[in-house]
Amino acid sequence: MTVTTRINDDLAAWDAEHFLHPTTHIANHQKGIMAGRIVTGGEGSTVIDRDGNRFLDAFAALYCVNVGYGRTEIADAIAKQARDLAFFHTFGGNSNEPAIRLAKMVMERAPAHMSKVFFGLAGSDANETNVKLAWHYHILRGEPQRRKVISRWRGYHGSGIVSGSMTGLAGYHTRMGLPLPGFLHTDAPHYLRRPDASMSEAQFLDWLIERLEAMIQAEGPETIAAFVGEPVMGTGGILPPPEGYWARVQEVLDRHGILLIADEVVTGFGRTGAMFGSDKFGLRPDFITIAKGLTSAYAPLSGSIISQRVMDVLVAGSEEHGVLAHGFTYSAHPVSAAAGVATLDLVDRLGLVQNAAEVGPYLIERLRAELGQHANVAEIRGVGLMAAIEFMEDPAAMRWFEPMTVGPKISAAMLARGVMARAMPEGNIIGFAPPLCFTRAEVDQTVAVLKAAVTEVLGG
Amino acid sequence: MTVTTRINDDLAAWDAEHFLHPTTHIANHQKGIMAGRIVTGGEGSTVIDRDGNRFLDAFAALYCVNVGYGRTEIADAIAKQARDLAFFHTFGGNSNEPAIRLAKMVMERAPAHMSKVFFGLAGSDANETNVKLAWHYHILRGEPQRRKVISRWRGYHGSGIVSGSMTGLAGYHTRMGLPLPGFLHTDAPHYLRRPDASMSEAQFLDWLIERLEAMIQAEGPETIAAFVGEPVMGTGGILPPPEGYWARVQEVLDRHGILLIADEVVTGFGRTGAMFGSDKFGLRPDFITIAKGLTSAYAPLSGSIISQRVMDVLVAGSEEHGVLAHGFTYSAHPVSAAAGVATLDLVDRLGLVQNAAEVGPYLIERLRAELGQHANVAEIRGVGLMAAIEFMEDPAAMRWFEPMTVGPKISAAMLARGVMARAMPEGNIIGFAPPLCFTRAEVDQTVAVLKAAVTEVLGG
Ligand SMILES: Cc1ncc(COP(=O)(O)O)c(C=O)c1O
Ligand SMILES: Cc1ncc(COP(=O)(O)O)c(C=O)c1O
Repeated sequence: MTVTTRINDDLAAWDAEHFLHPTTHIANHQKGIMAGRIVTGGEGSTVIDRDGNRFLDAFAALYCVNVGYGRTEIADAIAKQARDLAFFHTFGGNSNEPAIRLAKMVMERAPAHMSKVFFGLAGSDANETNVKLAWHYHILRGEPQRRKVISRWRGYHGSGIVSGSMTGLAGYHTRMGLPLPGFLHTDAPHYLRRPDASMSEAQFLDWLIERLEAMIQAEGPETIAAFVGEPVMGTGGILPPPEGYWARVQEVLDRHGILLIADEVVTGFGRTGAMFGSDKFGLRPDFITIAKGLTSAYAPLSGSIISQRVMDVLVAGSEEHGVLAHGFTYSAHPVSAAAGVATLDLVDRLGLVQNAAEVGPYLIERLRAELGQHANVAEIRGVGLMAAIEFMEDPAAMRWFEPMTVGPKISAAMLARGVMARAMPEGNIIGFAPPLCFTRAEVDQTVAVLKAAVTEVLGG
Repeated sequence: MTVTTRINDDLAAWDAEHFLHPTTHIANHQKGIMAGRIVTGGEGSTVIDRDGNRFLDAFAALYCVNVGYGRTEIADAIAKQARDLAFFHTFGGNSNEPAIRLAKMVMERAPAHMSKVFFGLAGSDANETNVKLAWHYHILRGEPQRRKVISRWRGYHGSGIVSGSMTGLAGYHTRMGLPLPGFLHTDAPHYLRRPDASMSEAQFLDWLIERLEAMIQAEGPETIAAFVGEPVMGTGGILPPPEGYWARVQEVLDRHGILLIADEVVTGFGRTGAMFGSDKFGLRPDFITIAKGLTSAYAPLSGSIISQRVMDVLVAGSEEHGVLAHGFTYSAHPVSAAAGVATLDLVDRLGLVQNAAEVGPYLIERLRAELGQHANVAEIRGVGLMAAIEFMEDPAAMRWFEPMTVGPKISAAMLARGVMARAMPEGNIIGFAPPLCFTRAEVDQTVAVLKAAVTEVLGG
């Protein structure tokens, strides 16, 4: 395909002049070196730029457009709500109908031990809400010294000051003065990066749990407020945990009175082939962080699902002390909530959780069939519609490529062939997390393009 | 008017069962004691609940629905964008047309020394972005020890962990473990609460500046990253600063290399009768925090406007180190950006900044005429369409009512008469911040209802 560009382009000039983009090379962008494109439309798993170029989006934007592009059902719900009532706040017990309906729909889908949902805007603020409420819970229970938060290297929990502190990717810490004190990181459950090549997966799991336990003991269990983790690590490389990982982690946390925050911003609402990653992997969280799939990104909305045992303490606290002073002006925004109601309806109606459970394994199967024997392919892994292929210079000798050398070249070669996939930031990993409506034919196209790109970059 | 309520009410029951509301008495809410109502529509400055009750909203929800309710121009823009392209991300230089257009419109309106705008979702995250970028700026310039942030008692900057730490209202700190270390608070510019009744306003200003200077000296100027303040304090009581306040503060900050974050979440886009409070009060900020008026709350969107001198350092940093690792999935969300473009167009087209500049003084004049002589009225103050009336047991003797005893009663008595105003959280203050399309007739209605409510609660 030919990607066209323009001269005397007002939009591109204004973009470079006025708009500071998220997570972008701002020096290049300001010079008009636009790595990206101006996107104007989409349908199904395809996005369309303003020049009419079409791309198969095998990463659902940022693993968020779960129902696919161009769903008029959601656009209509947004339009209706914007006309009926674009906004009224929900402070002081005020409410709006879509927010109430969405709260009910979320709680019907959440694990049974969860109680209520609070709405925010971004995954980042929802994680921050969960830490704040964890602190509040411990203070109300007479353990104000429980302040520390343990997350994991390679975890991604957002890029605010607190959520960025929880994030375990060095690129989000360096020169930002993060992490804040008290935000600790334990090891990533990334078997390929095990400290000793001879370890079995079971031995690696033992090692992870010992290291977690040792960190807790060294810090003092009574100083730890919460542990936060993605059921399946996303940005850190799309890493399904070793068999039995979460049961073992849960046991450690329970023994030490540490709350569990399951960051399901990516895994929530079907991506793993189950409604929540917590269901799939047997987590029993006190907080579930949701965003992305909640509205399929059609409007900004995040949430914190809170367990009954935490809510009991919060309600008693409010009984004694009054108003819970936590909220954003746009919490439970009616337009965003209407988008959420329409999205979750559509997920059911189209059977997308089931589709993820079926097409996901097909994607893994095709990746293994086409690339499993390639000399530089170290691992092909995934669960539901999250998958990754990791490249090494020499897998047998455990010799790595320099980080972010090969991965970005492969994703660029794929893009030139009309398929979007993501070079994940740590290592040389191509990630796939397409809309949950992805078809087998789209899998075939993706894998064919990947194979051509790999051949171009690394040879046959 | 008669406010009707319902029995066997599914929506109210689901609301109580599933939905954790922002800044709400959760114990009462869970018991079905609903302080608020389920709002379903609105037009102009009027909101309508599901029982058809109509309220004149003299606080524009949470001083955010600046263009008023039911603006089809914005609803249409939202509907069109949701249909054309509900979402694609703007990471890595990707872009969308409404975000580019909005960035240009924001920068055309911002003070001339500002350079670019980054988009977030809530005012809270935008303030956090500004602190994070202030830290990044100091690190890039070789002053990594500049970490502390000074805000003011009575300031409101959000309710996240960092933004809540900047907030200077005890109710947002207590039992939340806030503020974080390094988030300091200097005195509020609230002349009525001056430490010594005999002080003139000029003496009070000298005292404020001396105290700020003393805090900076005590902490070490080289440890202070930024000062954050609302040009006109909002939630803390709607407090226009003493004459000359900002020029004096600015001089102190400049002398010590401390960056200024102007939190214009409330004051931005016309509320003070100027486009920005920074214009009105002569601030020269390094960061301007925007939200609310940017979209009139029709869709969630916030922003950080960044000065040229800060951008120069950030761009050079990116030149040297690569990608600026900061962004939210929904940064520059196309639907929210489309709402922003339509909102700012409408603000111009309806002349709302001018209307705020004209109707605001009329509101103050009417409040003074009708309530200026009341024995419990300590102060009537305001600028543009932000106004407050503060009550004391005996203003002459400087005797205060217990905080939040009289104010909430007056706002409840007003609500029963069909007008929404806000009992501000510190003291006994009724705040007004209506849509910027508020008319003189609506001012008359508001003041008449306030007078009746005051008479009911405090006597004639
Ligand atoms: C697991 C996880 N948590 C949190 C976030 C942050 O969400 P947001 O970008 O909406 O702030 C992300 C974003 O990718 C994520 O993947
Ligand atoms: C001055 C100011 N800053 C920040 C905020 C926080 O904005 P949000 O509620 O959108 O997080 C508010 C909210 O009222 C505010 O008034």
